[in-house]
Order: sequence, then structure tokens, then C-alpha cells
Amino acid sequence: MKPVRVALLGCGVVGTEVVRLLLEQSDDLAARVGAPVELAGIAVRRPDRVREGVPADLVTTDAMGLATRADVDIVVEVIGGIEPARSLILGALKSGKSVVSANKALLAEDGQTLFGAAREFGVDLYYEASVAGAIPLLRPLRESLVGDRIHRVLGIVNGTTNYILDQMDTHGAGFADALSEAQALGYAEADPTADVEAFDAAAKAAILAQLAFHTPVTAADVHREGITDVTAQDVAGAKAMDCVVKILAICERDGDRGVAVRVHPAMIPRTHPLGSVRGAYNAVFVEAESAGSLMFYGAGAGGAPTASAVLGDIVAVARNRVNGASGPVETTYAALPILPMGDTVTRYYVQLDVADQAGVLAQVAEEFARHGVSIQAVRQEGSGEDARLVIVTHRATDAALSSTVESLRSHASVREVASVMRVEGDI
Amino acid sequence: MKPVRVALLGCGVVGTEVVRLLLEQSDDLAARVGAPVELAGIAVRRPDRVREGVPADLVTTDAMGLATRADVDIVVEVIGGIEPARSLILGALKSGKSVVSANKALLAEDGQTLFGAAREFGVDLYYEASVAGAIPLLRPLRESLVGDRIHRVLGIVNGTTNYILDQMDTHGAGFADALSEAQALGYAEADPTADVEAFDAAAKAAILAQLAFHTPVTAADVHREGITDVTAQDVAGAKAMDCVVKILAICERDGDRGVAVRVHPAMIPRTHPLGSVRGAYNAVFVEAESAGSLMFYGAGAGGAPTASAVLGDIVAVARNRVNGASGPVETTYAALPILPMGDTVTRYYVQLDVADQAGVLAQVAEEFARHGVSIQAVRQEGSGEDARLVIVTHRATDAALSSTVESLRSHASVREVASVMRVEGDI
Repeated sequence: MKPVRVALLGCGVVGTEVVRLLLEQSDDLAARVGAPVELAGIAVRRPDRVREGVPADLVTTDAMGLATRADVDIVVEVIGGIEPARSLILGALKSGKSVVSANKALLAEDGQTLFGAAREFGVDLYYEASVAGAIPLLRPLRESLVGDRIHRVLGIVNGTTNYILDQMDTHGAGFADALSEAQALGYAEADPTADVEAFDAAAKAAILAQLAFHTPVTAADVHREGITDVTAQDVAGAKAMDCVVKILAICERDGDRGVAVRVHPAMIPRTHPLGSVRGAYNAVFVEAESAGSLMFYGAGAGGAPTASAVLGDIVAVARNRVNGASGPVETTYAALPILPMGDTVTRYYVQLDVADQAGVLAQVAEEFARHGVSIQAVRQEGSGEDARLVIVTHRATDAALSSTVESLRSHASVREVASVMRVEGDI
Repeated sequence: MKPVRVALLGCGVVGTEVVRLLLEQSDDLAARVGAPVELAGIAVRRPDRVREGVPADLVTTDAMGLATRADVDIVVEVIGGIEPARSLILGALKSGKSVVSANKALLAEDGQTLFGAAREFGVDLYYEASVAGAIPLLRPLRESLVGDRIHRVLGIVNGTTNYILDQMDTHGAGFADALSEAQALGYAEADPTADVEAFDAAAKAAILAQLAFHTPVTAADVHREGITDVTAQDVAGAKAMDCVVKILAICERDGDRGVAVRVHPAMIPRTHPLGSVRGAYNAVFVEAESAGSLMFYGAGAGGAPTASAVLGDIVAVARNRVNGASGPVETTYAALPILPMGDTVTRYYVQLDVADQAGVLAQVAEEFARHGVSIQAVRQEGSGEDARLVIVTHRATDAALSSTVESLRSHASVREVASVMRVEGDI
């Protein structure tokens, strides 16, 4: 069998591991693919920085040349970022090469262009590693849940922030301390913005939503709130209700009305399957019409886990090429509107420091009622200077809930809105 | 495009749902497959028992005729059991039809013959629905974790017994009461043997082990213990250690020495991801070399979830046929020996009723030491008539652990071995 030739663009932590696996597992891969799988070349910016184990004779700085070279069948992009990755991927697709990518930012920003090119040139574009690292998730959603209708996807898709929140939950630490510790242990970067401001999670949410609902969704369509405002008090409040604070990517379909995609901190019941996701692990919980509730759990990042997902895709596209076939095309036939965040139905947890006077509870309840929000539970704690009301609402639109909170902020009897957080995941 | 013609063998709860999905989702399926997907016929034993929604003109009692008919491309077997399913599947494969099956008992008993026939005739045999119902599990293991090495698989693969144990854990009930309740609610059958004696779980364990380790494993190779001896006391003992009793299918590879496959009750930490699997849900926890720890969770059984898995397989094999390709063949190239249960390394929890005398603890500890078993923790409870020793061992061979327990049973100071259970899942 004519070998399948693989070009690698980028050779950082993940790329190096992909090289290692391709070389070490070559017999296994050949058996799986039905033909030998060969490394055709490795494009890097800094050849002097190439790690041990990477065959120096294959290294080049001419990425576009490699991506469009006649002898190459598959291009693996593990550079990340928008450019030059986008141009390289388009170059590869237009030259009839299949592409495997781990690039969440690019797919969330311009997936449509790339999927369109793959469709037009009849080649595969696979991207399992772009969301939730090692967890086989995207291909099961694309291929196993075909014929099913997905209603909702709830995900913990960023290991850094899950680690931080888990530390806050376990040790009662504040956000700043938990972040410092995460950085010291290598779970968070020196500049943690992409993670703690949820840009990373928002890109992944867009990719998940697009796949789940067959409709175009970009990162700009995702309502995004990071974890920088989560306090030890929020975490303690959750614990008191047997809940845990997680930052969740939530993708919902409202029939044919539209889809809503958001990322924000939320309290979920500790007994929810997502509640048991500790440390830097990821998990994606799917609610589908026929399959029911499913969850996929595993390592969200790291060289070996991510490389494992890339390898799974390499084998799949290689087998497709050997068989003269291609995988299921990305379809966005539903073309559903993106619904505004204000329309999203959710629940709020609100903690108020109030003046300890008769009638405060009634006034606060009236404020909720005025906005059409029902209260599920209220707890009054403390007295005098320390009087606190802890309220959990029933489901209402986010617009109604947030304007209630705004009214409360300026309410005469409310000294401070100490904590506000959405409540999700009641199953 | 020439339509892909699907024959259904069996039309019970799952078959009826498969028919419904094929008819209702036909446009979606055609888009996914690249050709129309048509129902060619439905073979049943009792035409008078066919449910509403099933096209009567397609119903026949000639199953073999339908399975080998010239116009049929794909045969879906949802009859279950060994015969006539085996003969029908072999007949279909030998006639060049691809086969989709949900038949765990058959695959666990004679998978090798069926995979061999599929290989020989160059057609697909897919069986996602045979293990863990709706959860996309087998295809991710076969296709996404290719090139990875799986060390261990731990699974909750039987919803009936997980439901019963969950009830015992939540309500402190004894086994008999929990079983009666499960039967009343439809979670357990009138004759619950296949579930509570772990025959169902053992078949699934064999299928998982074969797939994970690329080596032949049949149900007979699986060490099997059901849940009928699990007591409320065992469950309480687990709770006191912040553990929970689950019945686990455990598949382990010991390098190239061999594989060990077993199903039995075990205590696992409540914080283990498998510890959060409630009610009749299933989950399979995989430990792989590159991917790390993964877990797949979802509904293990039920008409709609199982039909959803069958449909995913139908689409995959249909696409393969349209593309003139076939899926990855089942390989059992590793041909590893099956290791005896006695060699399996595990840990024990032992609760002993002892005479309340000085030196009993030392004597008991000595008994463990004599068998080469180290003790991790001992707790002494009660006194006088109620003196109890609760022991958790370190890892040792099952042979050493069980002979220790046998010695203790006849030990002068031990009045009764009140509880013995393996402890697993420390991550």
C-alpha cells in the first residue's frame, strides 16, 4: 500500500508528542489505517528550538511550502492562533490535503470558511483536539449521535479554571490565592487571561454548539463571564446548599426559535455528574432526545492527552484517504438565530446584606415579584448588623433576574448585594 | 444515489424504536449517509405482536430469508440470545451484508467466529449497543484511542444492579427489599438472575476487554460474583470510610503477561467519578497511556437509548458501504493469556466480630502478615459482645487475601467474618 504522508505544522509540546507517537506506534497505526503512515515534514518557526526525538532532517521553516507539497496527504496543524494557521489550513485544503487541527480559537472564529473549503475540495477537516483534549467527544457527537436531536450541552471545558475553583471549594481560599497557587503548580499561565476571563472556554463553547445544533456559532456569539469575581463567600454559599461553583459552557437549543450559548460561573448540585469533576479535568454533559443524558470526562489539556486526540483524527482521515472516502461533512443546515442572553432562562442565587428590620423580607420578595421572578427558597441568617438573606429563585429570564438584582442594589433596605450567581444543572 | 437497504431482525422494545427513528429521521439520515436509507423488511416470530408504527407490509417470519436476501445491504440484529441470532448473523455476513448487533451474550460467547466471518467477507460488524446502551463507547475506544495503550477499564455496566445498590446506599435498605422495589418500578425483571448474578455484566466485561486489549476474551474467562450477598452492613461499612459499594466490571492488562477480567461488588471512594453514577445509569472509566483517565457516562439500557446506539452504527456502516469502504477490523493480534483471579492484585475490606480480649488485634494482624498481606488501616469498634475490627488492606494478590480470610474464619478469636469486600478505584 502506498504510504500515507503526514505533514506537521508546529512542534511545541503537543507537536513533539504527536511526532513521538507517530514514530513509536508506526506498526500499530499501519495496521489500523491499512497503509504505512509516514512523517513527511515538520514546519517550525525556530529550528534551534526543536526538541529531542524530532527528526532534524524533516524540519523546515517553509510552512506553506510543506502544507501544499505534492507528496503530502494530511496536514496536522498544532500551531494555534488565527494567522498563519488559517492561511496554512486553507492552503492545505485547497491543495486537496485533509487537515487535522487542534485550533479552537481559529475554529470558533472562522470555522465556516474552513468547513466550506473542506466541503468544496472534498477533503476532511477533523478537530477533536480543539475541545476537551483527550476526551473522544466531537466525533461521537458527529457520528454516534447522528439521527438524534441534542437539546443541551453543559461543559467544564477549561482545566485551569476548574482547578482554581476546585481549590477554592476544597480549601476555602479566595480567588487570588487560588490563582497564585495554580500558577505556581503550572496549572495556570503567567498571563492567565485567556483562561480566567473565559476566552478559551467561549471558543470551545462555540465549537460545541455549532456541532450539536448544526448551526453556525462563533466565539462572538457566546455570552462570556470569567471567574475573576467569584469569591470565597460565593463558594461557601454554594456549599451550604450542597452545591459547588463551576464555570460552565452552556449550549441550549430552543426548538426552532434559536440557540443560546454562554460561559459563566454557576452553582450546580454536588450530586450532578459535573459536580464530581475535580482538579484540571474536563467533562461535557449532553442531553439528547433519544440517547438521554450522556457525559464525557477526561483530561482537557496536556501534551500527551491532546496528542492522543490528534492521533485518533490522523488515523481516521488516513483511513478515509486509503478507502477513497471522506468523513461526514460539517453541516450547518439549521441556520438558527442566536438568542440574546436576556432571553435565556436560568435561576439565580442572591445573597443580600440587609437592615435587620421587620418587613425587609417582604419588601425584597416584592421586588422579585415585581419583575415576575418567583422565589424557590429564602433563608434568613444572622441578625442586626449581620442580617443576611439568601435567596434562590425559580427559573426566569436572565433579563428579569438581572434587573431584579439591579433594583435590589439600590433598595433602601439592602445594604449590599453580597453575592449573585446563576444556578444550573438540576437534573 | 442507490438507497441503502436495512433489514431488521427482531422488533421488541428496541427494534420498534429503531423502526420509528429510521422512518422519522429519514431525511437527516440520508444527509448523513450520502444516500437514502430504506427499511427492507422486519423479521419477527409473532406478527400478531408487532407494535403500532411498524409497517405491516414489511413484516415477515422468514428471518434467514430476509437476512440473506439479495436486495438487503445491512442486517440489524436485535433479537438477543445465542440462536437463532448467531446463525442469522453468520448467514448475513457470508452473503456480504454488513451487520449491526446489540447482542452482548452472543458477542461475549462467540465474538471470534463472527469477527472472523466479517473479516473474511470484507464487511462490517458493529455492536455499540451491546455494552452501555446509549453511551458512545465502543467506537471511541476502537477509533479515537487507536495508537494508545489501554491499561485498565472499570465499568458500571448494569443499570439494574447499580439502581439496587444506589437504593441500598441512599435508604439503608437490605438487598431483598431493594430488589423488590426495583422490580416494582421496572428496573429489575421478575427473574432478575441475569442482572443480580452478573451474567449480563460479565458478557459486557468480556466485550470491553477484547476491544481494549486486542485479545480474545469470552464470558467464561470472566471471574463473576453478583450482588446477592451484599448486605446493608457492607454498605454502611463503605459509607463510614466515605466509600460506596458498586458492582464493577474490571479489565486489566499486565503488560505482556496477560489480562484479567472480573465482575464483582467493590467499595470505591465516593469521590471517584464512578462514585457519582446513580440510579440505573452506566459509566465506563478507562485508563490509557496517552489519553490518561477518561469516563463515558449515560443510560445503559432502555428502548430509546439503545436504539440511538443502533442508529449510530447503522449510519456508520451505511456510509462505509456508500463509500465502498469498511470500518476498522476487529483485531486480536495480542493473543494474551487470561490470568487467573488468584493472581489479580486488589485490596480487601474485612469486618470481623471478635472476642474482646487483649491481643486479638495483634493475632489478627499476624494472620494477615503470615499470608504476606499488609494492613493499611484498622479500626476497632465496640467492646465486649460487640467488639469489631474493621480492616482495610494494602494491595495484595486475591489468592493471598482470600486465604487470609479463610484462616480468619476458623481463627479462635474471630467469632464471625461479618463482611468481606474488595476495595478498588483509588486514583
